Amino acid sequence: MIDPQRYPRLSRIEVPADLRQFPEEELAVIADELRAYLIEQVAKVGGHFGAGLGVIELTVALHWLYETPVDRLVWDVGHQSYPHKILTGRRDTIHTVKQKDGVAPFPKREESEYDTFGVGHSSTSISAALGMAIALQRMGDERKVVAVIGDGAITGGMAFEALAHGGGMGDEPDGIEPNLLVILNDNQMSISENVGGVTRMLGRLTGSRTLNAIREGGKKLLGDKHSGPAKFVKRWEEHWKGMFVPSTFFEELGFHYTGPIDGHDMDALLGALKTLKGLQGPQLLHIITTKGKGYELAEGDQIGYHAVSPFDPAQGMVSKPGAKKPTYTDVFGEWLCDMAAVDSRLMGITPAMREGSGLVRFSKEYPQRYFDVAIAEQHAVTLAAGMACEGVKPVVAIYSTFLQRGYDQLVHDVAIQNLDVLFAIDRGGVVGPDGATHAGNLDLSYLRCVPNMVVMAPADENECRQMLSTGFQYEGPAAVRYPRGTGPGVAVQPELDTLPIGKAEVRRRGHGIALLAFGAVVTAAEKAGEELGLTVVNMRFVKPLDRAMILELVRHHDGFVTIEDNVVAGGAGSGVAELLAAEGITMPVLHLGLPDAFQHHASREQLLSEAGLDVAGIRAAVLQRWPQQGDPKARSAAV
Amino acid sequence: MIDPQRYPRLSRIEVPADLRQFPEEELAVIADELRAYLIEQVAKVGGHFGAGLGVIELTVALHWLYETPVDRLVWDVGHQSYPHKILTGRRDTIHTVKQKDGVAPFPKREESEYDTFGVGHSSTSISAALGMAIALQRMGDERKVVAVIGDGAITGGMAFEALAHGGGMGDEPDGIEPNLLVILNDNQMSISENVGGVTRMLGRLTGSRTLNAIREGGKKLLGDKHSGPAKFVKRWEEHWKGMFVPSTFFEELGFHYTGPIDGHDMDALLGALKTLKGLQGPQLLHIITTKGKGYELAEGDQIGYHAVSPFDPAQGMVSKPGAKKPTYTDVFGEWLCDMAAVDSRLMGITPAMREGSGLVRFSKEYPQRYFDVAIAEQHAVTLAAGMACEGVKPVVAIYSTFLQRGYDQLVHDVAIQNLDVLFAIDRGGVVGPDGATHAGNLDLSYLRCVPNMVVMAPADENECRQMLSTGFQYEGPAAVRYPRGTGPGVAVQPELDTLPIGKAEVRRRGHGIALLAFGAVVTAAEKAGEELGLTVVNMRFVKPLDRAMILELVRHHDGFVTIEDNVVAGGAGSGVAELLAAEGITMPVLHLGLPDAFQHHASREQLLSEAGLDVAGIRAAVLQRWPQQGDPKARSAAV
Repeated sequence: MIDPQRYPRLSRIEVPADLRQFPEEELAVIADELRAYLIEQVAKVGGHFGAGLGVIELTVALHWLYETPVDRLVWDVGHQSYPHKILTGRRDTIHTVKQKDGVAPFPKREESEYDTFGVGHSSTSISAALGMAIALQRMGDERKVVAVIGDGAITGGMAFEALAHGGGMGDEPDGIEPNLLVILNDNQMSISENVGGVTRMLGRLTGSRTLNAIREGGKKLLGDKHSGPAKFVKRWEEHWKGMFVPSTFFEELGFHYTGPIDGHDMDALLGALKTLKGLQGPQLLHIITTKGKGYELAEGDQIGYHAVSPFDPAQGMVSKPGAKKPTYTDVFGEWLCDMAAVDSRLMGITPAMREGSGLVRFSKEYPQRYFDVAIAEQHAVTLAAGMACEGVKPVVAIYSTFLQRGYDQLVHDVAIQNLDVLFAIDRGGVVGPDGATHAGNLDLSYLRCVPNMVVMAPADENECRQMLSTGFQYEGPAAVRYPRGTGPGVAVQPELDTLPIGKAEVRRRGHGIALLAFGAVVTAAEKAGEELGLTVVNMRFVKPLDRAMILELVRHHDGFVTIEDNVVAGGAGSGVAELLAAEGITMPVLHLGLPDAFQHHASREQLLSEAGLDVAGIRAAVLQRWPQQGDPKARSAAV
Repeated sequence: MIDPQRYPRLSRIEVPADLRQFPEEELAVIADELRAYLIEQVAKVGGHFGAGLGVIELTVALHWLYETPVDRLVWDVGHQSYPHKILTGRRDTIHTVKQKDGVAPFPKREESEYDTFGVGHSSTSISAALGMAIALQRMGDERKVVAVIGDGAITGGMAFEALAHGGGMGDEPDGIEPNLLVILNDNQMSISENVGGVTRMLGRLTGSRTLNAIREGGKKLLGDKHSGPAKFVKRWEEHWKGMFVPSTFFEELGFHYTGPIDGHDMDALLGALKTLKGLQGPQLLHIITTKGKGYELAEGDQIGYHAVSPFDPAQGMVSKPGAKKPTYTDVFGEWLCDMAAVDSRLMGITPAMREGSGLVRFSKEYPQRYFDVAIAEQHAVTLAAGMACEGVKPVVAIYSTFLQRGYDQLVHDVAIQNLDVLFAIDRGGVVGPDGATHAGNLDLSYLRCVPNMVVMAPADENECRQMLSTGFQYEGPAAVRYPRGTGPGVAVQPELDTLPIGKAEVRRRGHGIALLAFGAVVTAAEKAGEELGLTVVNMRFVKPLDRAMILELVRHHDGFVTIEDNVVAGGAGSGVAELLAAEGITMPVLHLGLPDAFQHHASREQLLSEAGLDVAGIRAAVLQRWPQQGDPKARSAAV
């Protein structure tokens, strides 16, 4: 429970209605308590850190001024939503964040009425908030809608689409302007530094900005508290007149622009918000904040403190000594540099995930062949397609869940044209603590139906490297899909060898039933197969399948069990069944995979176990279908 | 063959190298010939019309000035590419456009080396061209890259992503600016009128523009032909200084802006292009054109003449008298208005496809509940999600192939949150003359794997209406996926009845084999079933499947044939096989569906026949697998 000595005000705030009992003058102090509490709690258990610290004042101001949850507040991405969660009923449970049955890592409608829109992926908030604003307006409901979006998230094309739609509505015949406030939280960061033209556009001011100047200007203006809100905005605008501000961009799209203001200056924030709350039409408030604000180490290392493992706040994060087992991400990052060294045609593309996708070393060693395109998955894929047309060899490093956003580009621009693009798909299958929004549970299904694709899933780290080399050398669209975290720990060989396309590997020969396993579940399948004396095959290729191998196995087995960390619906196992059907073979098949449901957040191991994809689960499922496999005598008799 | 009397110059131009033999002075006359030839040819066979007429001068100027295909020219969408095709080897075959084995409806790499990038979907050109420019630059290749994009296509978020990436590259440490020219072809139209903030932004000038003023200004400036190109641009910029032009928007993103110029003034075009060809860095040229230019009726009815059926150019298009069989699109349009009349919560959303999706009447009768969001599929879907959060009932009308671009939004924003959004998916399955880029062959696969989705496919027009009502009343995400064109011609009942979720319909009881048919192929399946005495089931629901019905059928049949106009991989039939496997049932299954290949353009009927999805194909496939079904005696014996 929260300590009322250390947090005399926050300990009295369970929900925003409590916050609204405090006078305006105390909000800055409440913000200080909230910041201290966030540091204390997240340091204890880990989680998203820097983004929340950057919006402490904003969160307090919004919940104090607006009648949440009646008024609608939409957070983009949700990395920054911990302070919001603390103020909206989850103060005493925030230490369970990301854990099974604990607080969700992102806003989630099921969890709280204050979480008006579930997020996780970037750039959705303006669309969602605009939809809410329109719906309320059409029903004659005066409730307010506010979206908070970062300058990283606003680089995503759908944010632009939403701005253009909302800004232009009033221009249509009989058009009605939506009443919507978009707050641009400008901290010059995505998870890593922002890049691209939007940064350039915003950077005209912020690149050379002096926060002190903004703060001092704000104080001067706000000195006279009795000047009304309209007057305030007028004076504010006059104050900034003549300076370059990125207002034109938003104004041209039809949003009324206010700002920039210091997002850590509570008085300035409240002044601007009070005025904007009374205005009609699409409004944009531009605030300048610092990611990690108030915790010096986080301000100094904004990438490192974006998300943290548990640490001592007095000491900061300490990197653990000793060799760590490499993750699949590490394996990819090493491979990329090694292949780049021997093939100058290799180009590496990431949609703003340099750290998460393992591209840090590559970005330093090959800066002219490294492309961070900002949060822009659609563009990332078609950029690669364009490159491939000219004979270079692009590698798109992307999370499975984010590739959903480049799906049309993968189909329309890469696969139809059979272009030589390699997709290095990280976080395939079960992801875990980040919850349903970040799960990679669908990729084998949505990729397998696309003609021309080669789709691989490695059983271990070394095979991941081999598959990356295979996909890179293959002259057409290929995907290597690997899981989050570490694998079984197989040593990675330095060679850049390739595997034969569409060939599976028999891991063990057994009797009765053959386990056909794809990717990350091969290790568990192999153990279960050993226990039950079954044949186990590492399928390697989801597409094309090893037809010859499957037909050979048909002749010597009574049934197949397909195993994958993808939904069963349309997954790799269904591909096996389709092949059998096409060959006119009727054979018992059992498909093990992820359920037809979105999985909640929990550890990867917990979720795999719940889905029955660990050794015990596989064993149990086989024995349920073929009880005689538990009996060695019956087993040998059956063959 | 082309008539050298009517086309003295064009008849001598087979490829751009021939064009480049002509002096600059003759280009305007060549443009006139090209325009006349395009009108003559497209009027004869039908096809995309207005967009091509709008870029006649641009096409001539680009191919004359640039060394195509060595220099790279990328057309966005491709509706406007017929003049390009005529000048690049397809003059004498353009009359076969969209027909089987004829010229493709869009640029296609397989067809011509002048078609540098295959298109069909909107807003890809800047990404692709930027990829090409980067690749060439990194290889030290000085070739030029030009993208041509319309003001409709530039509303798509990925175009913004590409502009922001390309414009910002020079700002990065050691950043290299890409050498790329983007030509913004501003005709204020998509397929219908453009809407939204981008239009607003461009409209500051163009809304009040006087083309004559631009033209006259251009002529005055260009009078002195001996002033060099740099001088030209300088004077041009001075000329426009003080007028508002939308330069800020592009300049802020990092593109150097030139324009606007009259895109039908050959001298002005060449003047600007010559200058820009010599400049480094990302350039944007803004040209103003008229869709349908030079054919008065098309200029006057830009929507009607976007794409045409064969017509007499002297007379114009004549609407045929008499009652037409309603298309599925018509059925949807009627349903939408009828349901809107009884439920005020209904909101209709289209990403710039009012005509194609059947929303014209709805847009007129319910303007405040009609939302054309511009070419912005991502935003369209999440806007609907936001609306659904507030208790209204959004209907997203979208083509199957374009829903690929909103896939992440469907998963992340609608399905995960189980929101009440109805997707009315037109052009599902085989589309036909528009080719692979417009095919709806994948939707059942990529939708079926998504948890929480209800997916329906109607067998006929009346069932389409029933399913739309069903999906609308169902409180969660639902999709009704129907084909292009007309159905079997079943009369549509005026009621707004619903169907029970997840219930199939037995069309006929037969012996031995059961045909389980989904959607548009039910009619053919029924005929084949009659011929062979088989059971035929109209499955109706791809998800959830009618489990009880399938288990009942298992007991009375020797095998199943699943039939669908979707790829077999992960399709509806695989769902049936997955259900059988989950139930531990081993039964012969044959999956009939579309091949694991992108289909070329041809008529819908031709493609369905090639895929074996007509009556003859189904019959043959069944008999190949179960020859005894051809023999009535063996058939009854088998049961």
